[in-house]
Amino acid sequence: MTTVSFLGLGEMGSALAGAVLRTDHPTIVWNRTATRTAPLVDAGAVAANTPAAATDADLIVVCLFDHASVHDVLDPLADRLTGKSILNVTTTSPDGARELARWSVAIGADYLDGGVMATPEMIGTPAAGVLYSGSRRLYDDHRTIFESWGKTEYFGDDAGMASLYDLALLSSMYVMFAGFFHGAAMVGAAGVPAKEFAARAVDWLHAVVPAIAEYADVIDGGDYSVPGQQSLEFSDISDIVEASRAQGISTELVDVVQRLIHRQIDAGHGSDGFARVVESIKDPEAAA
Amino acid sequence: MTTVSFLGLGEMGSALAGAVLRTDHPTIVWNRTATRTAPLVDAGAVAANTPAAATDADLIVVCLFDHASVHDVLDPLADRLTGKSILNVTTTSPDGARELARWSVAIGADYLDGGVMATPEMIGTPAAGVLYSGSRRLYDDHRTIFESWGKTEYFGDDAGMASLYDLALLSSMYVMFAGFFHGAAMVGAAGVPAKEFAARAVDWLHAVVPAIAEYADVIDGGDYSVPGQQSLEFSDISDIVEASRAQGISTELVDVVQRLIHRQIDAGHGSDGFARVVESIKDPEAAA
Ligand SMILES: NC(=O)c1ccc[n+]([C@@H]2O[C@H](COP(=O)([O-])OP(=O)(O)OC[C@H]3O[C@@H](n4cnc5c(N)ncnc54)[C@H](OP(=O)(O)O)[C@@H]3O)[C@@H](O)[C@H]2O)c1
Ligand SMILES: NC(=O)c1ccc[n+]([C@@H]2O[C@H](COP(=O)([O-])OP(=O)(O)OC[C@H]3O[C@@H](n4cnc5c(N)ncnc54)[C@H](OP(=O)(O)O)[C@@H]3O)[C@@H](O)[C@H]2O)c1
Repeated sequence: MTTVSFLGLGEMGSALAGAVLRTDHPTIVWNRTATRTAPLVDAGAVAANTPAAATDADLIVVCLFDHASVHDVLDPLADRLTGKSILNVTTTSPDGARELARWSVAIGADYLDGGVMATPEMIGTPAAGVLYSGSRRLYDDHRTIFESWGKTEYFGDDAGMASLYDLALLSSMYVMFAGFFHGAAMVGAAGVPAKEFAARAVDWLHAVVPAIAEYADVIDGGDYSVPGQQSLEFSDISDIVEASRAQGISTELVDVVQRLIHRQIDAGHGSDGFARVVESIKDPEAAA
Repeated sequence: MTTVSFLGLGEMGSALAGAVLRTDHPTIVWNRTATRTAPLVDAGAVAANTPAAATDADLIVVCLFDHASVHDVLDPLADRLTGKSILNVTTTSPDGARELARWSVAIGADYLDGGVMATPEMIGTPAAGVLYSGSRRLYDDHRTIFESWGKTEYFGDDAGMASLYDLALLSSMYVMFAGFFHGAAMVGAAGVPAKEFAARAVDWLHAVVPAIAEYADVIDGGDYSVPGQQSLEFSDISDIVEASRAQGISTELVDVVQRLIHRQIDAGHGSDGFARVVESIKDPEAAA
């Protein structure tokens, strides 16, 4: 059996520790505010009184607030971490994850970074996924533990990749939600309840999401002029911008999408496919 | 049997006429470039040599390029359209549809506006849908014809509503696609193929789309402080903006989302739920 310890029992740390407990692996838990250990101790975990006491484990899972809080907790433990395996699932930037990986190498510890693509309630269900990058050995050794949380994916030994992927997926999500709010505001100004619009938007977005895979093929193919695509000229969204203005709502969001589309048209690529918009994002210089 | 005529046989008009032909209703077709009638005539349609000859039908479907081309074709026919039923599925703005409805009333014709939520290939499959608004009588009389194209929905007698809904759904779609391109550019700068990112993004977006319905409940409820929501403060996307900048890509798109989020935080609503972002869009004055 693998002994797993947890540093940090917020919503997410508690959910991750609970899932490991259910697999019957010995589980040690520590949290700055000690009272939060109680439900897990009731479920069979051993509470550590200090972070140091939680280092005596085969796998140390760190789930704190942010990059700074990880250093707050780990820095004083440096001596004890030599030869240990650290999985950090605290949300950090790609560069933050790389810095923690270097810090770990310096003290002789093995470091794996994790990006949790789930809410705490989803942990342990097939809907949850965690993205990993960093030490391959650590990933391979503890993969069955990780599977108790949800789907697992490994993105190579650059510790920053899981975070980069995580943030890239989150960016797509936040932008999509903003797009929903924009549509809801358009019809909302005509008295349509958001719920009524949402029912249609959910169906519509599910129906069009798969087109992403086709755009990706075009992007990777490197030829934006392959036949059978919706052209950039056809993708002009003036009608959306104007209807939004006529409804009296902000056009900021659709203005930027229109700008990204038009930067390619203005550069003479109007007959190329819509997927070419990615070039407007890849090259910020062209924006100037 | 209902005689249906089509003015305009581009990609979409041809698909719509083809679907009606398959239901065995007498079908008359006209197109500015006459050669485009051939495949439909082969399938059983009668070609009209002039737009006037196509007005002798129970239902006249107009599917041209834009609002101006609809007037180009219909204006000379005004005398012949009294008492006729016109369905216009040419993409027009909400105000454009309202103008066409008023024009129709003036000449004594019945007007229904349609917004096609499908590509031509999807017409006649359950994946296609057409949104309608304007004359209720016309919608009720010809609904079975409309069902040969796909799902039908009626949005009331304001002829502009179908177009407004259409553009609102399209705005959500274009913004979502832009969000995918942003994520693809983030990981792309680290050498990840778009196809690899797309595979995950498709799963992830399908998984998070349903959250839209929860946001809608909060918006309609009118109380952004109901418990159980992700707060605006927690939704700060600085990490995404910074990681995008570190990858050397444009931050325009995520900057505007961050700005919409922060306008609410700055107004003192940081502990309210993320759904409150819709207020930033509803009220463009606050942007100034
Ligand atoms: N919740 C989610 O849906 C979700 C999803 C994906 C990723 N994540 C990531 O998972 C991490 C944890 O999230 P969470 O939801 O569990 O947050 P949370 O409920 O706010 O918990 C934060 C935890 O960090 C501890 N902490 C904060 N600063 C500390 C410091 N300086 N020293 C020691 N401990 C400190 C807190 O201890 P106290 O109890 O003493 O305050 C608590 O255990 C975050 O990085 C978050 O971005 C969360
Ligand atoms: N294709 C789609 O995926 C799709 C989806 C939803 C909605 N729509 C909407 O459906 C409408 C038609 O689209 P489409 O794809 O069929 O376009 P299209 O293939 O470009 O066809 C345009 C049609 O309009 C005719 N036309 C243009 N200007 C005219 C004028 N001044 N006088 C007479 N005829 C004129 C063209 O005649 P000629 O053949 O003589 O050029 C042709 O029949 C558009 O409003 C479009 O926004 C299309």
